[in-house]
Amino acid sequence: MPPATAINNLINELSHLELITDPVQIAKLSLDYYYFSPILEPKLKEKRADLVLRPQTEAEVIQIAKACVKYKIPLTVRGAGTGNYGQCVPLAGGVVLDTTKMNRIINLAKGIATVEPGVKMAAFDKKAAKIGWELRMAPSTYRTATIGGFIGGGSGGMGSINYGVLRERGNVQGLRIVTLEDEPQIIELRGDEVQQVNHAYGTNGIITELEMPLAPSYPWAEIIVTFDDFMQAANFGQALGNSDGIIKKLISIHAWPIPTYFIPLKDYLPVNKSVALLMVSEYDLEALSDLVKEYSGDITYRKTQKEASKGTSLLEFTWNHTTLHARSTDPRLTYLQTLYLTLERVEHFYNHFPNEVMIHLEFFKFAGKVIPGGLPLLSFTSEARLDEIIDYHEQQGASISNPHTYILEDGGSKVIDPLQLAFKERVDPYGLLNPQKMRGWDEKT
Amino acid sequence: MPPATAINNLINELSHLELITDPVQIAKLSLDYYYFSPILEPKLKEKRADLVLRPQTEAEVIQIAKACVKYKIPLTVRGAGTGNYGQCVPLAGGVVLDTTKMNRIINLAKGIATVEPGVKMAAFDKKAAKIGWELRMAPSTYRTATIGGFIGGGSGGMGSINYGVLRERGNVQGLRIVTLEDEPQIIELRGDEVQQVNHAYGTNGIITELEMPLAPSYPWAEIIVTFDDFMQAANFGQALGNSDGIIKKLISIHAWPIPTYFIPLKDYLPVNKSVALLMVSEYDLEALSDLVKEYSGDITYRKTQKEASKGTSLLEFTWNHTTLHARSTDPRLTYLQTLYLTLERVEHFYNHFPNEVMIHLEFFKFAGKVIPGGLPLLSFTSEARLDEIIDYHEQQGASISNPHTYILEDGGSKVIDPLQLAFKERVDPYGLLNPQKMRGWDEKT
Repeated sequence: MPPATAINNLINELSHLELITDPVQIAKLSLDYYYFSPILEPKLKEKRADLVLRPQTEAEVIQIAKACVKYKIPLTVRGAGTGNYGQCVPLAGGVVLDTTKMNRIINLAKGIATVEPGVKMAAFDKKAAKIGWELRMAPSTYRTATIGGFIGGGSGGMGSINYGVLRERGNVQGLRIVTLEDEPQIIELRGDEVQQVNHAYGTNGIITELEMPLAPSYPWAEIIVTFDDFMQAANFGQALGNSDGIIKKLISIHAWPIPTYFIPLKDYLPVNKSVALLMVSEYDLEALSDLVKEYSGDITYRKTQKEASKGTSLLEFTWNHTTLHARSTDPRLTYLQTLYLTLERVEHFYNHFPNEVMIHLEFFKFAGKVIPGGLPLLSFTSEARLDEIIDYHEQQGASISNPHTYILEDGGSKVIDPLQLAFKERVDPYGLLNPQKMRGWDEKT
Repeated sequence: MPPATAINNLINELSHLELITDPVQIAKLSLDYYYFSPILEPKLKEKRADLVLRPQTEAEVIQIAKACVKYKIPLTVRGAGTGNYGQCVPLAGGVVLDTTKMNRIINLAKGIATVEPGVKMAAFDKKAAKIGWELRMAPSTYRTATIGGFIGGGSGGMGSINYGVLRERGNVQGLRIVTLEDEPQIIELRGDEVQQVNHAYGTNGIITELEMPLAPSYPWAEIIVTFDDFMQAANFGQALGNSDGIIKKLISIHAWPIPTYFIPLKDYLPVNKSVALLMVSEYDLEALSDLVKEYSGDITYRKTQKEASKGTSLLEFTWNHTTLHARSTDPRLTYLQTLYLTLERVEHFYNHFPNEVMIHLEFFKFAGKVIPGGLPLLSFTSEARLDEIIDYHEQQGASISNPHTYILEDGGSKVIDPLQLAFKERVDPYGLLNPQKMRGWDEKT
């Protein structure tokens, strides 16, 4: 933790900026949805910034960066705090830099937009829709999440069925960062260079601007299809994913009893049925009906985009909102993040853990193929049993992005990214940015 | 061949319609590009309609259908005649019904259009682009081909890298046909029902209206990338196909010496280089450059959509335009239509026929995956050798859609389509529509 004198000096130096020291506000702005994980919950719940700064311009970010370097104070960047594994939790105290007031859309054109990191995703899409475009992908926290937070800590969501995940080449076209050097620099990264800071939890640069490619917007209908049998629902999901003539944005499959947690939707979710929650282009609903018929499904809910916009989107029952709803009913529940890759493997796990793991699939594009990933739910008993379940998944060839760690490398790739590490050495020589999150850095010292 | 009296009766009865009996015109309107095949050339070159009728409305089509049934005169429907295996060649004489004057766009809206069959594809897209949309796919004969002809005799082309082939569910949403019954009926088919007449060469109904789903239009840049090594070019093609963050419309790969046939492009095609001809969204060119670099390619040609629109599109060197250019230099050349499915198989054939088969790949979506298909070129020596080469491809697991037959079933699926046959029994009880093309019908009688 930084010494109080250093913090006081920093506060004095930056008192002309929006600066939060109220403990209630600090607590709120130091945390995210880490408590979805019973492993992370005790580790993170006490973590607090010493203060929160809320810059409105890149120039203010540079002032903050310079002061943090001067007083050697840790700096952790935060968007809306909708992450699930402490990406923006300040483990070593210091400053939380809240980007939500850096919310200008700098340029919005067909196919491409330049934005500040704090622009909220749904608000952006509302504006972009007027010219016929939208973000290529967004998480289930779309209404509140910021674009910068999504790049810093997210990976995919609705739309990934078309464009793959954020990491896919082309899905972030350019960005600007401010460094944490004695004299903070602005660095612009373009094309493949963006991978140096993409999904690095803000450990190697403060993103101040993003150039995001857009997708043509469709009127997305929202549909629930129910199936007698879970594997029938899973096969339907794969078939819809593979149906290149049917344009879709979301294919989310839930084994019974997960639908029991979707209380606001209960009128559309018959007992014992596994379900598909879908977003499909209104132009392709006839083709969708034919596919549903082929897989013996029943459409119980169908709203046009206009109708859907009046209530809660089905999106907010998918991806990690599924976990949120499940935990509202049963707080012992937690989840995994799994790349099943094949339906054979999905079926294996479905049968292997009949009373322990509830299968929740999200289909998305991965290296040009539609594959089943998932956020299966399980009742937490012990860390040992959780590790056993994770190990079993990996033994069977499913890859787990462990949501029960806040360490960058341990969550996803399991290996240190030499590009991201090298970039951190360049832009954050004092190791002040989001400390203790990048294993490669900590092991180096 | 129908008796002269019947033809005369028909001519008298339909003399108020646009009716062509000039032998030069009839010859032109009885043929297509069948001569790409040395096998079809002698079989089809003498085939002629007795007359051509050019209706302007569905009501006129009904009059023609009724008269043909009354006098038992064969009727073969034709669009622009840009097919390659005699789809619209009237084997039994009679009437050729030329649809090119049924060219009204009935409805053009975002995502969907209703058109008459004779609407030309490029002309349609020019109008649709004004509202930000375009046809999902089109052949290399885009400038002249009609939408109805494409549905009747085509299967895919540029855009199939996104939406798969025409046969994919949803790529034709609805259509109307006129039957050849004593009292011709109008039948409307929707959704999966359209498969009964999709790619049936007009053997089971005269299409009078089509409802086509549209794709969002992008500004498509045109790019040539050259590679030292053919398999490097092929791997690049697959990688671009799999790059979900890079929006594209065309990936066409040509092994040296095929580029020598692209004479108008010779300044961009260095000696001994295999090449990729591409259409990629202007918004994604930076990501494309990074991918090209990864595969050690050189970009020798890059035009914006606007620049490309002033000259000949690269499209007109791809798909079966490749064969057209090759045959302009060397008329002994002919081609195959191959589903390689994997690059391993591509490499095998590349090495197996080093001096006999020149590999030309077109990447497209097939059941949700990007796969290499192709229209390889070969120097024709004898039918026996051609059959040997085809057999060898099939033994090795590549599927050949034989372009050297005019029989519907022998070209593609190799099996009789029971739906299409049953539909023919219903709508063409006298077997007058495009006779001798549907094997299932001929074997039945």
